[in-house]
Amino acid sequence: MREIPGGVTAALGFRASGVSSGIKPSGEPDLALVVSDTPVAAAGVFTNNLVRAAPLLVSQNRLRKGSARAVLINSGCANCLTGAAGIRDAQRLSRAVARELGIAEGEILVASTGIIGRRLPVPKVERAVPRLVKQLSRAHHAAAAQAILTTDLHVKEAAVETPMQGRPCRIGGMAKGAGMIAPSMATMLGVITTDVAVASGLLRLFLRQAVARTFNRISVDGDMSTNDTVFALASGRSGVSVRAGSRGARAFGQALEAVAERLATLIVKDGEGAGTIAEIRVAGGRTDREAQVCARRVAESLLVKTMLAGGDPNVGRIAAAVGASGARFDPGRLDVLIGAERVIARGGVQRLGTAAIRSLLTGPDVQIDIHLHAGRGEGRMTTCDLTEEYVRINARYST
Amino acid sequence: MREIPGGVTAALGFRASGVSSGIKPSGEPDLALVVSDTPVAAAGVFTNNLVRAAPLLVSQNRLRKGSARAVLINSGCANCLTGAAGIRDAQRLSRAVARELGIAEGEILVASTGIIGRRLPVPKVERAVPRLVKQLSRAHHAAAAQAILTTDLHVKEAAVETPMQGRPCRIGGMAKGAGMIAPSMATMLGVITTDVAVASGLLRLFLRQAVARTFNRISVDGDMSTNDTVFALASGRSGVSVRAGSRGARAFGQALEAVAERLATLIVKDGEGAGTIAEIRVAGGRTDREAQVCARRVAESLLVKTMLAGGDPNVGRIAAAVGASGARFDPGRLDVLIGAERVIARGGVQRLGTAAIRSLLTGPDVQIDIHLHAGRGEGRMTTCDLTEEYVRINARYST
Repeated sequence: MREIPGGVTAALGFRASGVSSGIKPSGEPDLALVVSDTPVAAAGVFTNNLVRAAPLLVSQNRLRKGSARAVLINSGCANCLTGAAGIRDAQRLSRAVARELGIAEGEILVASTGIIGRRLPVPKVERAVPRLVKQLSRAHHAAAAQAILTTDLHVKEAAVETPMQGRPCRIGGMAKGAGMIAPSMATMLGVITTDVAVASGLLRLFLRQAVARTFNRISVDGDMSTNDTVFALASGRSGVSVRAGSRGARAFGQALEAVAERLATLIVKDGEGAGTIAEIRVAGGRTDREAQVCARRVAESLLVKTMLAGGDPNVGRIAAAVGASGARFDPGRLDVLIGAERVIARGGVQRLGTAAIRSLLTGPDVQIDIHLHAGRGEGRMTTCDLTEEYVRINARYST
Repeated sequence: MREIPGGVTAALGFRASGVSSGIKPSGEPDLALVVSDTPVAAAGVFTNNLVRAAPLLVSQNRLRKGSARAVLINSGCANCLTGAAGIRDAQRLSRAVARELGIAEGEILVASTGIIGRRLPVPKVERAVPRLVKQLSRAHHAAAAQAILTTDLHVKEAAVETPMQGRPCRIGGMAKGAGMIAPSMATMLGVITTDVAVASGLLRLFLRQAVARTFNRISVDGDMSTNDTVFALASGRSGVSVRAGSRGARAFGQALEAVAERLATLIVKDGEGAGTIAEIRVAGGRTDREAQVCARRVAESLLVKTMLAGGDPNVGRIAAAVGASGARFDPGRLDVLIGAERVIARGGVQRLGTAAIRSLLTGPDVQIDIHLHAGRGEGRMTTCDLTEEYVRINARYST
């Protein structure tokens, strides 16, 4: 398996485009389209939030048949808490795209991201659709990846090529997300494409597994979006087909997870205001579940996150979060390492110089290893620091 | 029932003092003592954190007999994750105070707050003990309340007088806490005294109830301390005695809760960096428990808290937090009011002017009412905004 360029159009059979339609007052790109040459197997994973945006309801319904032709995504407006009118808006826009592409409306999946509670400016967006379709090209993956961003600073793309059954196959994708990022659900918008042939049921299974192990293990702020969506589309254009339980299926699953992992890491690295990324690894939990809950609690502790922001040698906060997590262990046996340095040993904070701990905590990448010594359970989370910049961004987001 | 001055010595039979012992490099007061004239009924509530500071272990052990004479509290050092040496430090200090007071070491309850993982400078603190005991006076309640503070900006005292069995009775207390404040457990340090006679078992019951309804319903940052402790001491000096199930017991419970509620509110108002306080009320949950979980999720959402910081009219974030809480309800029936204004009606964000919503969200006090329309369950939380100042404070706390 090797990384390749090309993002969401790295796989054969897909084109993409991104334009400005005027949803964002800034005039930045806000409308993206990914189109397959033919109807292809499709799957989706959505937020667990009980409050779900209109485009999710529309897409969930359309995914029942397991195939799709295109994904339309807008940024700048979440089209959420907009009632029946919001559903109609999503349908009108997909109808406009379907007409321009000459395909059926039901073949278009939709997603939105941006401010909750505002209506889409439908006529404005409709006027941009011909331009959006005209721009479609295998070369325009980055324009599409750009058009789905909100507070993100950087475009998030990933793609790999891996030989399967003697032939090169590709999986690629794009994602957005910098705030309202929480674990234990799909936590962003993402589109992943592949030219391997995978039936939609199997594709959904692979997608769920990959999301659980990647996007669901990152946290920027612990808040759960109303719009989180990841789509996967499989064109089969590589000529390679995988079936459940085969060796090829395992290789495909690994490649899909590699792309999702890369996109998830890009999301944390681009966390609102983030300067330091920390991987929290927990070992020795009574169960994997307890270890994972413990990793989450540490990853979401504001005191741990501000400690990372300041490079502040206040490592007792890690132990406080571990103790608050609900995981059972003997506090007198707790070990915590930052990088290669043991900062808490057998439940006691070690006497290290302030400067030494500060250098351990100073990013861009920090590794925190927690040993509970209560069993063989393991967990892992990736988080970022909490900075004044995060507060500045979110205290003024809608205005 | 009426509010009176006097804090932790408002009740008859108690004296207090506060001095600087040199634990804090700043030279600010850091050592407080509350002493009863005679051994009195005593109870305590402690953090649920599995990682518990040394003084908690010492005090829990000493509370088994249900009586105490004094409470010794230091700020500036949590004496947590300090192992067996930390236990010995707490014992040495209480021994020094016991000797000076001429009472038994086991009659002294201890509590600490400050940085985790550092040892107490015991010889320095021992040298301050004679001065601490000499200062004891019914007039020095504010000096004691001052000496237990860390990042708090303001002293937190409360006291009420209420007639019981025809005689005036008093309940008063002091508390500290501004960060690492989370719900669902005792979340700070507090000492409450009364001159009503209450057996220690009943006192513990009343204290647990009051803590559950007050201190456990506030959140500054969702982090759970390793040192949280609330003590209650009952001198009986009013001549009034209450028994379980009596009308007097109910009146006593209400007065105790009033003092705890006042102290809890003072903690949120003094939340690190806080400028706006919001009360989150949830009605119409399927159960009280679901409504309370929902209120907590909203109170702890960083996006809701930064919205409050900026007075940013982004009310969809409230619905997103409600939907993520796990409470079951029909999103199409969700109502949210800020003050008297309905901002979300039947699941749709209302079209109000930016300036109008901004004025609703601008503190110092904001009331958010959430109606789930799924049952009769109710919940309530008090929270504060998340500001850049919070991050500044916590990125540099230990240095």
